[in-house]
Amino acid sequence: MSASPDTQDAAGIEKVVIIGSGPAGWTAAIYAARANLNPVSIIGVPASNPAPVLPGGQLMLTTEVENYPGFPDGVTGPEMMERFQKQAERFGTRIISDDVVKCDFSSRPFTLHLAEGGTVRAHSVIIATGATANWIGLPNELRLAQCGGGVSACAVCDGALPIFRNQPLAVVGGGDTAMEEASYLTKFASKVYVIHRRDSFRASKTMQERILKAPNAEVLWNKAVVDVTGQDRIEAVVLEDTVTKARSTLAVKGLFIAIGHSPATRFLAGSGVELDASGYVHLKARNSFTNVDGVFAAGDVADSVYRQAVSAAGMGCQAAIDAERWLAAHGVH
Amino acid sequence: MSASPDTQDAAGIEKVVIIGSGPAGWTAAIYAARANLNPVSIIGVPASNPAPVLPGGQLMLTTEVENYPGFPDGVTGPEMMERFQKQAERFGTRIISDDVVKCDFSSRPFTLHLAEGGTVRAHSVIIATGATANWIGLPNELRLAQCGGGVSACAVCDGALPIFRNQPLAVVGGGDTAMEEASYLTKFASKVYVIHRRDSFRASKTMQERILKAPNAEVLWNKAVVDVTGQDRIEAVVLEDTVTKARSTLAVKGLFIAIGHSPATRFLAGSGVELDASGYVHLKARNSFTNVDGVFAAGDVADSVYRQAVSAAGMGCQAAIDAERWLAAHGVH
Repeated sequence: MSASPDTQDAAGIEKVVIIGSGPAGWTAAIYAARANLNPVSIIGVPASNPAPVLPGGQLMLTTEVENYPGFPDGVTGPEMMERFQKQAERFGTRIISDDVVKCDFSSRPFTLHLAEGGTVRAHSVIIATGATANWIGLPNELRLAQCGGGVSACAVCDGALPIFRNQPLAVVGGGDTAMEEASYLTKFASKVYVIHRRDSFRASKTMQERILKAPNAEVLWNKAVVDVTGQDRIEAVVLEDTVTKARSTLAVKGLFIAIGHSPATRFLAGSGVELDASGYVHLKARNSFTNVDGVFAAGDVADSVYRQAVSAAGMGCQAAIDAERWLAAHGVH
Repeated sequence: MSASPDTQDAAGIEKVVIIGSGPAGWTAAIYAARANLNPVSIIGVPASNPAPVLPGGQLMLTTEVENYPGFPDGVTGPEMMERFQKQAERFGTRIISDDVVKCDFSSRPFTLHLAEGGTVRAHSVIIATGATANWIGLPNELRLAQCGGGVSACAVCDGALPIFRNQPLAVVGGGDTAMEEASYLTKFASKVYVIHRRDSFRASKTMQERILKAPNAEVLWNKAVVDVTGQDRIEAVVLEDTVTKARSTLAVKGLFIAIGHSPATRFLAGSGVELDASGYVHLKARNSFTNVDGVFAAGDVADSVYRQAVSAAGMGCQAAIDAERWLAAHGVH
């Protein structure tokens, strides 16, 4: 269904607009639609590169999802997002295939500026634009990540897969997340190599010690990954010593990139929405309220800790319920 | 799979025990199992009455679930819980069909006392025992609630169903939740009657005004529901005036009971786990940590605001990730 003015109010103002179309965005849409709010979802544009919002979110880049509850035999990421979208559309969610490039939250109703030039006015907005994993930027890395070839940016998501059990694995990074990913993988792997560009970790001391003390973990200091080899499945990483420039090859069956995530919040510049030091939308309490009254956030764009499909979906549900009650309190039904 | 000692540590201590088997409990089990923590789920006993924990949780009492994302054509509550359980078992969750009657969190490892007399020792515990809606206690009320007959304790869950559209509906209660439920239903119903035993609401003034001002809402003061009529579908409620004792009949197509929820936390008496004034487990921050180190909580037992399957599942995921990291930090892998 495309956006049409008959479900807006007399002045053409939407009750609620959801920006983003991953698990959080679609779940917010399902709940908002069932609450008779006639939501509009602005889902991003696949063609735009780099896309501020990838339609369907990060799950579109994954193959098998085994940990979203309700699918005991697993489900592919794209099929899962298709099911979410279908459910949101079933209850009347309207879809705009465009990107939001700028938000004006300084006056009410809010105005969202679209990449293709139009604007959308709304009484309330749910930000669910997600985050993307940072990649090293090697062509083989992305190819093997997208076809289930053993390259991943999420140990909690993929670490339990049979292809990684009792195999040598590598984690790239030096921060707390890299230590968490490596620590998680020590439970599955025969060996976990932590590859780091420098000679010391940025991670907290406690987190470092967990890895330095683990019997099956080994840190490779001053090493950069310069290539990933393997046709359908990763076979090895090519390392370059950042001091001596000497190259070496390390055989691994899995490569976990843990060099941070980038929340998709650039379009919020100047909007007044408070971000934390890493650029995530800041939520103060156990709800979806941002510092701007009437603007809510859900999913990875506001979560640097859990980053799971089901936790994002749960946050999307909360944001829609919060928005519905906020609108009712402000006389918008 | 039943609990066996070979996956415990040498002293027979479980890494993580999950109490409860609704969306939060099973999701915690899925994540904990995939994190190689060999979780044990204590799922309650159907026969015990009143059951402290109903195996499968509140969804076992529902028919169609339309708002759990991933099921565009809907799914029944019991089928959904069967799928969750199957997924948790697929990754190795062990199951104990018993109730926890007492928790000793004063020394480590923790000790959980079971109704049938045994004990389980654990390094960490996830409380996911849920909450149950309070009912008036009329036989026809429960019968019509369990067979999709138009009696419900959750407007957000069921209000959008076609059977309620443009029909006269009734809400029983006088607190904030009753006002929220009634306000939500005014969007679907031809008329919403709010039935209250007293001559004033307990709800906050703002919430009351929303109902008192709504054009299609009407408050019936000093009325108690003494019967519900209808064979397969509700036809009317029988009211008794709490002052004059006069009886009257009100034809409605739906009855929403909003007289509170009771979190299943009685077994936590004396455990040191902090509860709020209504008996819910108190979570301080945007995570699953309770005030007792190593004890986590997820789902409706710690959520009096959203109470949805997907938000509970999201919390279950968070609790398992929190527990995994907490155990790793304490040297338990």
